Amino acid sequence: NKKLKIFSLNSNESLAQEVADEIGLPLGKCSVKRFSDGEVQINIEESIRGCDVFVIQSTSYPVNDNLMELLIMIDALMRASARTINVVMPYYGYARQDRKARSREPITAKLIANLLEKAGADRVIAIDLHAPQIQGFFDIPIDHLVAEPILTEYFKSKGLEGNDLVIVSPDHGGVTRARKMADRMKAPIAIIDKRRPRPNVAEVMSIVGNVDGKTAILIDDIIDTAGTITIAANAIIENGAKEVYACCTHPVLSGPAIERIDNSQIKELVITNSIELPESKKSPKIKQLSIAKLLGEAVIRVFEEKSVSTLFD
Amino acid sequence: NKKLKIFSLNSNESLAQEVADEIGLPLGKCSVKRFSDGEVQINIEESIRGCDVFVIQSTSYPVNDNLMELLIMIDALMRASARTINVVMPYYGYARQDRKARSREPITAKLIANLLEKAGADRVIAIDLHAPQIQGFFDIPIDHLVAEPILTEYFKSKGLEGNDLVIVSPDHGGVTRARKMADRMKAPIAIIDKRRPRPNVAEVMSIVGNVDGKTAILIDDIIDTAGTITIAANAIIENGAKEVYACCTHPVLSGPAIERIDNSQIKELVITNSIELPESKKSPKIKQLSIAKLLGEAVIRVFEEKSVSTLFD
Ligand SMILES: Nc1ncnc2c1ncn2[C@@H]1O[C@H](COP(=O)(O)O)[C@@H](O)[C@H]1O
Ligand SMILES: Nc1ncnc2c1ncn2[C@@H]1O[C@H](COP(=O)(O)O)[C@@H](O)[C@H]1O
Repeated sequence: NKKLKIFSLNSNESLAQEVADEIGLPLGKCSVKRFSDGEVQINIEESIRGCDVFVIQSTSYPVNDNLMELLIMIDALMRASARTINVVMPYYGYARQDRKARSREPITAKLIANLLEKAGADRVIAIDLHAPQIQGFFDIPIDHLVAEPILTEYFKSKGLEGNDLVIVSPDHGGVTRARKMADRMKAPIAIIDKRRPRPNVAEVMSIVGNVDGKTAILIDDIIDTAGTITIAANAIIENGAKEVYACCTHPVLSGPAIERIDNSQIKELVITNSIELPESKKSPKIKQLSIAKLLGEAVIRVFEEKSVSTLFD
Repeated sequence: NKKLKIFSLNSNESLAQEVADEIGLPLGKCSVKRFSDGEVQINIEESIRGCDVFVIQSTSYPVNDNLMELLIMIDALMRASARTINVVMPYYGYARQDRKARSREPITAKLIANLLEKAGADRVIAIDLHAPQIQGFFDIPIDHLVAEPILTEYFKSKGLEGNDLVIVSPDHGGVTRARKMADRMKAPIAIIDKRRPRPNVAEVMSIVGNVDGKTAILIDDIIDTAGTITIAANAIIENGAKEVYACCTHPVLSGPAIERIDNSQIKELVITNSIELPESKKSPKIKQLSIAKLLGEAVIRVFEEKSVSTLFD
C-alpha cells in the first residue's frame, strides 16, 4: 500500500495534467504563488506523509523562477514527510553550461544537480539531457528518457521512410541521435560540418553525406535562437534536397527563433511539449507532440520499482 | 601576502562600488549577463587563484535571479581556485520564511543557507536578519551586522534625543531593536500591540507606552508593502504624538508601499541602501543612508581575521 502523488508547479501545467490523466490520478493540491515582493510562496494543501511524490517542473524560461519553485517545493515535501521525492524535469535548464569551455567559467549544470540533491530530491527523471554526462553530476538515481522515438513515429506516420530520406545532424555532437533515428527509419545520415579555417575568419559550412534529391530531417536536442538549424536547413536545400524538416525535443525558441524559422526553408518544425509554448511562439510551421505518455509510463515504473530503460525497446 | 578581491553582481552595484572605495580597491572584473533564453552567464575576467574573495549581492527583487547569480558566481569562484569565498548579503531574501507557521510550509530561509553552503560559500556577512536564528541555519561562520547605529546617528544629527522622543516598535518581534535605539538616544520606548479578540474579527491596535506630545520614531527591520508601518504611524498621531518618523534597514517597498507612505502621517522614512532603490520608488519623504562604511570595515576585519563584533561597541 505505497501511495503515489503527482504535483505540478507553474512551468508546464498542461503537460503535468496530461501525465496525471495518463496515470489516472488527479494532480495533488498545492498553491504556488508569489508574495508581493516576488518571493515564491508554496503551500501543499493535502497530506503527503509517507507518499512517493513526483513533482513535474521544467526549468525553462523564466529559468531561475522555475528552479526556485522546484527547490522550495522539494524543501516543503521533505519537511512534510514524503517517503520519496521524485523530480520530473522534462527540460533541464542550464544543461549547456556543462563544462568549463573557458577559464573561470561556472559549471552550472553540476551546480543545479547539487542544489536539487541538497534540497532533498531522491531521484530525477529527465529527457534528452544536452550531454548524457550530466547523469554523472548526480549522486542519486537519474532516469534518462529519449524523445527520438516519438519524433520518429510522427515522421513515419507522414509516410517518410527509407532511402528517399536522409537524417541530418546539425553538428558533430548530435550524430548519435541522428544515427538512432536513421536506423529506425532505415535511412542514411548526413552531418553538417562547420569549421573555421583560421581564427577570425568566417565559418565554412559543408555537408558530409548526400542530400541531393532527398527529403531531409534535421534533428537536434535543443533549438534555442534557431540560428544553427535554419542556416543548416537552407544549406541542405542549396545542396539539392527536395524538402527539409526539422525536429527537436526541447523548443527553447528564444529571441529571433520564430522569425528565423518562419523565414527559413524548413517545411515543418516538430517539437515536444517538454517546454510549454506560449501563444506568442505558435506558428503554422510548428507541430508539437506530447511526451505525456512517455513520462506517465516512467512515473509508474519508478513507483513500481521497475526498470525504466525497457521503455526504449 | 594574502590577497583580497571584491566582486559585485547585479543587485546592488552602487553599494558594491562604495564598499570597494571605502577599502581602496577596484572592483574585480567580471561580466554577469544573460543568454538569449534568460540563463545567467558569468565570466570572471581576472585571476582569483589563492585570493580571499568577497562577493556583494543582495537577494532582493528579482530575488530568484539575484540568488542564482550569486550561486553561479560562487560555483565559478570555487572552480577558479579562490582561497576563501565570502558572501556579503546586505539583504537576505526569503528571511521571512524562517519557520513552519502552518503545516507543509517550506522553510526557505534554511534552504537558501543550504544552497549557499553547497555552492561553496565559506562565510557569510549579513545585516539585520529578519530573525537572528537564521545564523543557526548555517554550518559556516556568519557575521551578523546591525544598521541601527547608522539610523540612530542620523536622528541624533537632527537634534532628536532624550525625553521628548519615543522609540516605537511596530510589533512585539521588534522590541529588542527599538530598545537598543532607545538606549542610545536616552529615550523611552512604546510598542504597537495588535490582537484579534476572536477569529474572523478585525484586529484591534493599541499602543503600550506613552506617545502623547512626543516625537515618535518607528523602527523595523524590513518595510515591505508598508501596511503595518503606515497604520502604526497614523495611530501614533491619533494618540497625540507631535510628529512621527519611521526607519528600517531593508527597504523592500513592494506593491503599494510608496503610495501608502506618501499618504501617511510619516514625516520622513529613513532607510539604508541594503537594497538599491529604483528611480520609480524615490519619494521626497524617503532618506537613504549608506551602509558602505560598515560593510567595508567588516570586509577588512574578516580579511585580517579580526573580530567583527567589536564593530558595534
Ligand atoms: N543558455 C545558453 N544559451 C546559449 N549558449 C549557452 C547557454 N548556456 C551555455 N551556453 C554556451 O554553450 C556552450 C555549450 O554548447 P554546446 O557546444 O552545444 O554543448 C558553452 O560553451 C556555453 O558557453
Ligand atoms: N516575502 C514575503 N512577503 C510577505 N509575507 C511573507 C513573505 N515571506 C514569508 N512571509 C510570511 O510572513 C510570516 C513571517 O513574518 P513575521 O511574522 O514578521 O516573522 C510567515 O508566516 C510567512 O508566511
